Amino acid sequence: MRIVITGGFGFLGRQVVDALLERRTLCGAAIDRLVLADRFVPAEATVASDPLVDVVQGDLHERLDEIFTQPVDVLIHLASAVSSECEADFDLGMSANLDTTRALLDAARAQSAAGGPTPRVVFSSSVAVYGSDPALPLPPVVSESTLPTPQSSYGTQKRVCEQLVAEYTRRGFVDGRVARLMTVSVRPGKPNAAASGFLSGIIREPLAGLPAICPVSPGLRVALASPRRTVEGILCIAEAGRGSGPGQLEGGLPVNLPALTVTVAEMLDTLRRVAGDAVADRVTLSPDPAVEAIVGSWPAAFDNARATALGLRPDASFESVVRAYVEDHPEAVRSADLPAAGAIGGRRID
Amino acid sequence: MRIVITGGFGFLGRQVVDALLERRTLCGAAIDRLVLADRFVPAEATVASDPLVDVVQGDLHERLDEIFTQPVDVLIHLASAVSSECEADFDLGMSANLDTTRALLDAARAQSAAGGPTPRVVFSSSVAVYGSDPALPLPPVVSESTLPTPQSSYGTQKRVCEQLVAEYTRRGFVDGRVARLMTVSVRPGKPNAAASGFLSGIIREPLAGLPAICPVSPGLRVALASPRRTVEGILCIAEAGRGSGPGQLEGGLPVNLPALTVTVAEMLDTLRRVAGDAVADRVTLSPDPAVEAIVGSWPAAFDNARATALGLRPDASFESVVRAYVEDHPEAVRSADLPAAGAIGGRRID
Repeated sequence: MRIVITGGFGFLGRQVVDALLERRTLCGAAIDRLVLADRFVPAEATVASDPLVDVVQGDLHERLDEIFTQPVDVLIHLASAVSSECEADFDLGMSANLDTTRALLDAARAQSAAGGPTPRVVFSSSVAVYGSDPALPLPPVVSESTLPTPQSSYGTQKRVCEQLVAEYTRRGFVDGRVARLMTVSVRPGKPNAAASGFLSGIIREPLAGLPAICPVSPGLRVALASPRRTVEGILCIAEAGRGSGPGQLEGGLPVNLPALTVTVAEMLDTLRRVAGDAVADRVTLSPDPAVEAIVGSWPAAFDNARATALGLRPDASFESVVRAYVEDHPEAVRSADLPAAGAIGGRRID
Repeated sequence: MRIVITGGFGFLGRQVVDALLERRTLCGAAIDRLVLADRFVPAEATVASDPLVDVVQGDLHERLDEIFTQPVDVLIHLASAVSSECEADFDLGMSANLDTTRALLDAARAQSAAGGPTPRVVFSSSVAVYGSDPALPLPPVVSESTLPTPQSSYGTQKRVCEQLVAEYTRRGFVDGRVARLMTVSVRPGKPNAAASGFLSGIIREPLAGLPAICPVSPGLRVALASPRRTVEGILCIAEAGRGSGPGQLEGGLPVNLPALTVTVAEMLDTLRRVAGDAVADRVTLSPDPAVEAIVGSWPAAFDNARATALGLRPDASFESVVRAYVEDHPEAVRSADLPAAGAIGGRRID
C-alpha cells in the first residue's frame, strides 16, 4: 500500500506520519511506501531517511504528476494555506486550497479512469466552515446536518472542497472522506498569528516559563481537540468502511471530529491544578474585543454522534489534554516549575 | 444602467429580457444598455435589433472581456449547462458551470477593484442543490437553512457557485444574490430529455393536440413555479436592497423562489377542468420507476418565508399556471379542442 500525505512535514502531518510508521499498516494492509509531499522539508527531519519514506518537495499542484507516477492507494490531504493567509490574499487561498485540491482530485480520478486503484482520499477540512450568517445564526449545538455558512475565505474554500470530494466520490472517481478538524489545543511550537493561537498559547507558554496573554473573557466556551485525538480521528476516517451501520461511512457528509467543550476559565484552572500557581500566574487576562468576536463566533458545542458511531471519542477532560502535551513535549516544559511529585503526564518530569 | 443577461436567448433569458424591455428601469434607474450574451442567437430573434440591446455571441468564458469593456451595473447569470449534460460529461459541467461562473465573478471583482461600480450579480441556482444523502434524507419541508446535499453534478456545481457568490459578496468584490429556481412548469417549446420534462409535457403536449406520457404515479407531490413567477422572482431578487427587514436581503443565504406544491393528479385534473376531456385524455399513465425515483427525490414542499419577506408569492393555483400558459402561448394551443366558452386564460381562445 502506497500512502501519500500532503503537508507531511506540517504540525499534523508529522504526527500522522509518526503514527503510520509506528503502525506499519493501514486499512488492514502493510504500508509499502509513505510519500511525504510538502513545500518545505525541514533540514532536521530524520523521518526523510526512513527506508519506507519518499519525499516530494515543492508546490503540490506542480508535483501531482510525480506523486501519481506510482499508484496511490490512500491520499491524506493535509496541505493548506491557513486562514489568515487566505483572508489576507484571496487569490493565494483560492489557488492553494481550491485549485490544488481540485487538481489533486482530478489526478486521483485519472488514476482510476486509467484502470488503476480508486484512491481513498481523506480531505482535512475545518470547523471554520461554520460561521454565523447575519440571517442564520449558528444553533447552540452544531452537527454535520447544520448548514455551514462560512464567514471567511478559508472556510468557504474548505466547504467547497468538501462538496467536490463528495461529488467525485458519488461519481465513483475516488473514495473520498472528509474529516472536519476542530481547533487543536495544545499545539506545540511557536506562537502564531491565528486568532485561535491563544487557545494553545495560554497553556504552552507558561509551561515553557514564558508569559502569555489571554485575550478573551474566561467565561467564553470553546470546542477543542488534542493533537492525539485529531490524528486518531484522521486515521479512523481513513480506515472506515463504506456502507451503513456502526463503524461505516455512508453518503457524502463530512465527519466533525469529536470536540471537548470547555470554558477558558476551566482551561486556566486546569493549568493551575496541574502545574501550580507559579506557572498559571504567567497568564495575563487582557481582553481584546476583536479576538473575542472572532473566537466567540465559532461553534462551541457539537453533537458528535457521527464521529461516535465510528468509535471516536473527544478528549476525556482538558486535564488529560494538558498531561498529554507535557508527556509528548518534555523539551518544551520548564520542569523546575512543576510540582515535585511529578504527576504530570502520568510520569515524573525532570 | 448597463445590464448583462447571460443565457439571454434561452427560455428564461428571453422572458427576463422582455420584462426588462417593457419596464425600461431596474433598481429605480433607467436601463441604458441591455447586453444579451449567449452561445446561440436564434436567427429569428427580433429583440437583437432593439436599439437598447447589444448582443455578445459565443462562449461566455471567452467573451467576458468584451462584456466588461463597459462598466456592468447588473449581471443576471442565467447561462448554464443543464443537468443531463453535466451528468453525461463531468468536465463540461465543471467548465461551463463552475469555471465560467468563477471567471465571471473575477471579472466583476476586477471591475470594482479598478474603481468601477461594484456589480450586482444575480446567480440563478436551482432546486437541484437539494438531494437525499443516504445518511441525511431531506426533511418533509425544505427551507434555505436545510443543508443541501446535491445528488447530481449539476446540483453540486450550482451549490459551489452559490457559495462563491456569497464569499465574493462578503469580501465586497461584488453584490451577489442567489435565486434558487424551482422546477418551471409549464415550459413552452419542445419536449426535452430532462427527468422533469413531463411536468411541462403533460400539459403542453395535450394542449397542442399531441399525446403525452406521464411516467410517475399521480399521487406524487411536486413543487413548481410558472415562468411568470420565476421571472418575477429573478427581478425581485435583483432589485432587493441590502440590509435587514422586509424587502431586504441580509447575509449570504440564497433565496428559494416560491413553489406551489401539487400532486400530479391535481395537475391532470386541472387540465381536464380547463381544457376538457378530449385534451386530458391525450395523457397516458405509464410509470417509469427510474423517473419516479429521480423526481421523487426532489423536495416537494417549501417553507417560502424568505421569498415571502421579499414580497414574492407562489402561483395561486395550478389552474392559474395553465391559464397563464394558454394566454402567453396561443400559438401552441389547438384552440378547436377547447371549451367554446373560451374562459381559458381569462379571454376567448380561438
